[in-house]
Amino acid sequence: MKNFFEPENVALIGISRKSGPGSLNLMERMIQFGFPGRIYPVNPNAKEILGKKAYSDVRDVGEKIDLAVISSPRETTIRILEDCVVAGIRAAIVVNQGFTDADRRGNELQQKMVEITKREGIRILGPNTLGVVNNFNSFTTSFLPVIKERAPVGLICQSGIHMVAPAQFCGEIGKGVDLGNACDVGFYDALKYFGEDPDIEIIVIHMEGLTQGKAFFALASRLAKEKPIVIHKSGSSEIGAKAAMSHTGSMAGDYQLLKTALKQAGVTFLEEAGQMPHAVKALRYLPLMKGNRVAVITYSGGAGIMLSDEVDKYGLKLASLSPETIRQVAELSPDWMPLGNPLDIWPALMLHSAQKAFSVALRAVLNDPNVDGVICIAIAPVPELSHLEVSELLNRVVGEFPPSKPVIVWTYGPNAREVRKRYESKQRIMTYPTLEITAWALSVLSHRFKIIKQGA
Amino acid sequence: MKNFFEPENVALIGISRKSGPGSLNLMERMIQFGFPGRIYPVNPNAKEILGKKAYSDVRDVGEKIDLAVISSPRETTIRILEDCVVAGIRAAIVVNQGFTDADRRGNELQQKMVEITKREGIRILGPNTLGVVNNFNSFTTSFLPVIKERAPVGLICQSGIHMVAPAQFCGEIGKGVDLGNACDVGFYDALKYFGEDPDIEIIVIHMEGLTQGKAFFALASRLAKEKPIVIHKSGSSEIGAKAAMSHTGSMAGDYQLLKTALKQAGVTFLEEAGQMPHAVKALRYLPLMKGNRVAVITYSGGAGIMLSDEVDKYGLKLASLSPETIRQVAELSPDWMPLGNPLDIWPALMLHSAQKAFSVALRAVLNDPNVDGVICIAIAPVPELSHLEVSELLNRVVGEFPPSKPVIVWTYGPNAREVRKRYESKQRIMTYPTLEITAWALSVLSHRFKIIKQGA
Repeated sequence: MKNFFEPENVALIGISRKSGPGSLNLMERMIQFGFPGRIYPVNPNAKEILGKKAYSDVRDVGEKIDLAVISSPRETTIRILEDCVVAGIRAAIVVNQGFTDADRRGNELQQKMVEITKREGIRILGPNTLGVVNNFNSFTTSFLPVIKERAPVGLICQSGIHMVAPAQFCGEIGKGVDLGNACDVGFYDALKYFGEDPDIEIIVIHMEGLTQGKAFFALASRLAKEKPIVIHKSGSSEIGAKAAMSHTGSMAGDYQLLKTALKQAGVTFLEEAGQMPHAVKALRYLPLMKGNRVAVITYSGGAGIMLSDEVDKYGLKLASLSPETIRQVAELSPDWMPLGNPLDIWPALMLHSAQKAFSVALRAVLNDPNVDGVICIAIAPVPELSHLEVSELLNRVVGEFPPSKPVIVWTYGPNAREVRKRYESKQRIMTYPTLEITAWALSVLSHRFKIIKQGA
Repeated sequence: MKNFFEPENVALIGISRKSGPGSLNLMERMIQFGFPGRIYPVNPNAKEILGKKAYSDVRDVGEKIDLAVISSPRETTIRILEDCVVAGIRAAIVVNQGFTDADRRGNELQQKMVEITKREGIRILGPNTLGVVNNFNSFTTSFLPVIKERAPVGLICQSGIHMVAPAQFCGEIGKGVDLGNACDVGFYDALKYFGEDPDIEIIVIHMEGLTQGKAFFALASRLAKEKPIVIHKSGSSEIGAKAAMSHTGSMAGDYQLLKTALKQAGVTFLEEAGQMPHAVKALRYLPLMKGNRVAVITYSGGAGIMLSDEVDKYGLKLASLSPETIRQVAELSPDWMPLGNPLDIWPALMLHSAQKAFSVALRAVLNDPNVDGVICIAIAPVPELSHLEVSELLNRVVGEFPPSKPVIVWTYGPNAREVRKRYESKQRIMTYPTLEITAWALSVLSHRFKIIKQGA
């Protein structure tokens, strides 16, 4: 995989002479992205592309090429791959669609690709792929723009959308590979690469149809204890599985069977594609949760109840707070206030201040041996209520403790989006958009702890 | 309920002399909110509050008072309510906590309130409530800021958070009432008021424990065919139900039983509190879906598959697109492209343009008799890909048709949030943050159509 992620010399075969806005010119994108290596454009109809000499045939380049990226009509692909073999190239990405994702002819052509890779040993990524992105060396083969961030997260997917829309699908990624139809390079290859990659701490996978299954499972079972592997599998429904077939020619396989096997291997299995960014955020920034006992500190009784339902839904428990925790908050509360978990600090806040009520309560639950993780429900107030905003305070209190219990804040009100950023600024507290996801994120951290413990 | 929502003269009993930032002074809030009626502050320790003569006793006011809002320590509440009766007041809001939400003494005091309301006929809202908000006449009794919007949505809740954080919990609301501990004014009263209110088209309810159950069910069954009633019930878990008990003293009741009964009555029942704003948006702006057949038009094969899973999960089907629809898109696509539903227009877009591919596909499915609702998956591109942005085009195409099929766009990429606003600008297309919610929102519209049809 090194040729794919860390090439020095790249041939772009079938690259267009058109560049500029709207052209989706891969070579232009690659230069803009800051690739420090050498690029050799190949196009028989051009003498020069973007200021670089163009070759009419990849065999004419005469330099050692680490990677060929092929964007050309499907009928020309097999010949080009054979040319690559002659030119001594050991790795190729086939960008175009129209293979097992298409008709019978496409199937035949992809079968020929498989034969070439088996016979000649050239590794092929794709077809039907955006290829790779590696933000650690500013390399990408995606003709659509991708975001540059050196996050310790490696993505393996079968659809370009995951590389193009990380906010919706993966969270921040540092490296990514789109397997597309996966005629050769498959899930095992990519997992192995990220498993050995010191830049990568979390591996996220969007799978349409598993390839290299046996080797993948053996590796995943071993690797899952070292690095979190988070997987969403498309095709949980019959219609989804059918759609996967016509997208990447993937056999979706039996979803339930695969889910069970993946969970047994120790991966974090997601029921929803949209959960991925939330899982990555929790695993990247928060400590694991060493049990299932959650303390909820809340400004709002109503929200505390709704969160209780979610805590239960995701297999967690409301902690039985220690008498010492209750005592400390009771000292600030009216005599009539029944205190428990959720720990409703609104009456204490009205008698004293938001700062006082929240700091006492948060310190108490962080010290409480009956608590494994904390969720705070706090208002993100309009400016006239700024005395109720406690993002700085909560960060200060959490900063007094070693990172041994995850702390999540759920905040509501017209400024929630903006205030969430303040909570996350120290990377000690994380936030989520809904109460449901807040509880779910803790369950990911609790589940992950169990996986690692089983290995000890 | 008219006294609560449309009072002319309001007495504020136990109002503080402190005002300004951080004081949470209800009188100040009420004036800022633009209440055009008359306010009579009552506080024995003040001669004047915020420039208005203060009375030491509500019986001294000497004017007809429509509504008394009582914010005072719990031990004083019963005496004040009795004073209100003497003063001829027929409606009172008890803001303070410390009743059935608290200890035995609180229970006794609330029982005395119940006796007063039964004996004297004065209607009591609360205790433990922010009271009401009515954006149509600029009236609120909430000491926390609420958003001013004349949305045709009426909210009934038992926790102030729903009024304070509409973005997270209800979407936009035009009127709202927080029943709190619901010692007297209950779910039936509020439902009846909104049912008869021409300003209100959608009724949303966040319930901890149902009160006035028999009358409520009879009315809801009748009303649900005229106005959508959307309900989330807290306490789906045992721990949530227990927490509800100590929040508003509510008996949560058997969740499953209540859910079944509410669904039979024809309400839109939500499993998740966070779904409410999405349901309100769909019901407010989109036409109902007259069947369960969804057409998916997509830029991304991968997203189309993920959406197929969600369509199935929420009881909808992928429409079997008519031969005419397929023919029109096939004309733009490469020969090898297998076309179906999801309708993947990426290859057509690459051969022609985003504008061409999307307008042909969208017109075709809107004309297709096999389609009841449409989801479009479109990129929200970075500026250099602006030729792929089709929000204006899609609005134009949808505008050519009468509003008979709901059209939802799900858009991805770094600018998704901003581009979503453009899609929604004509109020014909709505957007949602995840594929899951997108499919779910259509299922709400399909379910609502069935409710109405059953009534015909």
